[in-house]
Amino acid sequence: MSGPGQGELAENYAAAGFGRALELGRRPALVLVDLVEAYFNPEAEFYMGDDACLASASAVLHAARDAGVPIIHTKVSFAAGGVDGGPFFRKIKGLAQFVGDTPLGALRPEVAPLPNEIVITKQYASAFFGTTLSSTLTGLGVDTLIIVGVSTSGCIRATAVDTIQHGFVPVVVRQAVGDRNPGPHEANLFDMQAKYAEVLDEDAVKAYLAKVGSA
Amino acid sequence: MSGPGQGELAENYAAAGFGRALELGRRPALVLVDLVEAYFNPEAEFYMGDDACLASASAVLHAARDAGVPIIHTKVSFAAGGVDGGPFFRKIKGLAQFVGDTPLGALRPEVAPLPNEIVITKQYASAFFGTTLSSTLTGLGVDTLIIVGVSTSGCIRATAVDTIQHGFVPVVVRQAVGDRNPGPHEANLFDMQAKYAEVLDEDAVKAYLAKVGSA
Amino acid sequence: MSGPGQGELAENYAAAGFGRALELGRRPALVLVDLVEAYFNPEAEFYMGDDACLASASAVLHAARDAGVPIIHTKVSFAAGGVDGGPFFRKIKGLAQFVGDTPLGALRPEVAPLPNEIVITKQYASAFFGTTLSSTLTGLGVDTLIIVGVSTSGCIRATAVDTIQHGFVPVVVRQAVGDRNPGPHEANLFDMQAKYAEVLDEDAVKAYLAKVGSA
Amino acid sequence: MSGPGQGELAENYAAAGFGRALELGRRPALVLVDLVEAYFNPEAEFYMGDDACLASASAVLHAARDAGVPIIHTKVSFAAGGVDGGPFFRKIKGLAQFVGDTPLGALRPEVAPLPNEIVITKQYASAFFGTTLSSTLTGLGVDTLIIVGVSTSGCIRATAVDTIQHGFVPVVVRQAVGDRNPGPHEANLFDMQAKYAEVLDEDAVKAYLAKVGSA
Repeated sequence: MSGPGQGELAENYAAAGFGRALELGRRPALVLVDLVEAYFNPEAEFYMGDDACLASASAVLHAARDAGVPIIHTKVSFAAGGVDGGPFFRKIKGLAQFVGDTPLGALRPEVAPLPNEIVITKQYASAFFGTTLSSTLTGLGVDTLIIVGVSTSGCIRATAVDTIQHGFVPVVVRQAVGDRNPGPHEANLFDMQAKYAEVLDEDAVKAYLAKVGSA
Repeated sequence: MSGPGQGELAENYAAAGFGRALELGRRPALVLVDLVEAYFNPEAEFYMGDDACLASASAVLHAARDAGVPIIHTKVSFAAGGVDGGPFFRKIKGLAQFVGDTPLGALRPEVAPLPNEIVITKQYASAFFGTTLSSTLTGLGVDTLIIVGVSTSGCIRATAVDTIQHGFVPVVVRQAVGDRNPGPHEANLFDMQAKYAEVLDEDAVKAYLAKVGSA
Repeated sequence: MSGPGQGELAENYAAAGFGRALELGRRPALVLVDLVEAYFNPEAEFYMGDDACLASASAVLHAARDAGVPIIHTKVSFAAGGVDGGPFFRKIKGLAQFVGDTPLGALRPEVAPLPNEIVITKQYASAFFGTTLSSTLTGLGVDTLIIVGVSTSGCIRATAVDTIQHGFVPVVVRQAVGDRNPGPHEANLFDMQAKYAEVLDEDAVKAYLAKVGSA
Repeated sequence: MSGPGQGELAENYAAAGFGRALELGRRPALVLVDLVEAYFNPEAEFYMGDDACLASASAVLHAARDAGVPIIHTKVSFAAGGVDGGPFFRKIKGLAQFVGDTPLGALRPEVAPLPNEIVITKQYASAFFGTTLSSTLTGLGVDTLIIVGVSTSGCIRATAVDTIQHGFVPVVVRQAVGDRNPGPHEANLFDMQAKYAEVLDEDAVKAYLAKVGSA
């Protein structure tokens, strides 16, 4: 990941017209992506080595509940042999941890869903792919999707790209997304801010939710 | 984009079971993503400053024609005001170059399509999103999609992710994809090889096509 | 199409809980499906033998323009040999009329689009399939889709089903959709009203648009 | 459902080039759509009054197992309040039977899945909509989808349309699909044969599977 410094990079991107700020809408929802045991359990193959994002995600979750906005949780599960995962299942050996209904696929207690919150089971990187997430958001009149979870360079990036492709404004909460390595983490935050999403701090997102909730 | 060195990163990813090699199929197709004037014309807002990928993409295109595999070109076009581009159109100012049927949206002569090749007009990053690309590939019995074009950190990454999500094996040709900056270019090649695609050299892809073509 | 009389059928469906009325939203859009020359030209293979729906569709189009709601037109076009139409292109011989940019694929003058209206080119039955229609509607904050065009038993039915699947409320305008035969026409209006859409008269839809436009 | 006689209708459709036979592929899969308790239990709101299709579906299932082709079962489930069902959930009161993990949503014993068969939980009419069915079929190299289940005028029709839209050849097994009323049942078989699918008898499909299985 060599190349010019960040200053030159920023100038290059600004000249090309990337990275404009998107106005946030009045009807956000929150999606918590794959905050399951496998990423936070030191025994698991997918263990990331850091769980700071979990506390931040939990804080955003509580702010969203206070604001009364729709909340969706995702987790991953594959059929026997990963036959419903196609080449993606073969590419990443660690996905075998998610075959069936396993403890490693369970949502973490810090972000346990309430009965009125939606839990989506997915097979691919994007929370939209092969799910009814877009339809659900549209049916609820949502215009903006706040995204937290793991991993920044995987399911978060794929979900952010699909959020804007489906016509919603994506907000990625910087402290509430995590990855196993700062290189891909930062590189993907950069790409998302430049081309697909608003990458905002937890405090800014909590303030946004508070404003929406009191409207 | 700080963080541990590449050695440590590679070790971290290997432990998590990322990056296994995918077997390439016997029925590939080639997609050339957005090889349009806007990225190669020094006057244009999206000018990348380098056109090495164009020569490589052209070489792969000729190898694909020799092998007789299906070939699909994509370009971008928006309705007046970008109303069919939603928040994506508002995020990236430079997309306004693609409103209507403009010279900057025209395919480059080096990769001009033949009459029997498909040209897809898209509005979003992924060549699959809001297009019939997946249906076309399925209808043709394709199992593997060779990807060339621009930009690595934008439409190429989004297309590679969607290729594997749709059940096809993605092959990204290292020399035939380009970006405006080596940082995001390399970071995205790394992510794709780790999680979504086979990133191969032009020579390896030409050898693969020659083998398929003679079968 | 034998079976019990309409009375018995209605009773059977009511007992199963089908056919409830959907509340129309405050932000409708209008889609005009495939109102192209091929269905109205007596020389064309797809000629329907009746153009009453065209006058009604035109009336709804003008009401929508008066109300200032988003307007989308669809037409059909295939690549050489219909290679982007897959088995659908092989199933229906008449689709060959839409290869390339042909006079039979041109939108009818009665419903000619204005410069600020979107024209979507599609390959399949549903106006949503392989297009960015859903993203566009979401980006515009639309909640309800008024559907006119042809044919009731083909692209109208497929579009109505996809409208509700994508989370929007579908409104099918009875006089503004047409088919080549009253049997399939009526059978599909029945199915849509029972399971997927509000089938309303032109007058009711014009009144709805007038109310939205003055809000 | 008045109109001209079947003879005149057939002539009208033939002139327009509908209804050509599609060649069946060498790699079929079988999907069993929504063969759940709710349609076959006399106490349930969705009870169809006839279970002949269940025996035929079971016979096709066993033929598919003998042939070793991929098998996918679908069922329906909604989150609390049907919030993931949008306007579709509001349109059909009977869908409330499928909230949560209910006995009425359980697959019937006659077609109980084996451990290596895929079970897809869906929210909408088409087995493809909001699911990874298309990706799974593509990943398995499938080219043809045999469709059985309920109901003909609802989920079977929607699934058949989406099958051909995704580039697969749809085969609807006449005796193995059922509906609550012969009017919509026959009307939808007619539409599917005319525009979207091969509607074949159980014996023909068993012979096709036997031939595939011995190849």
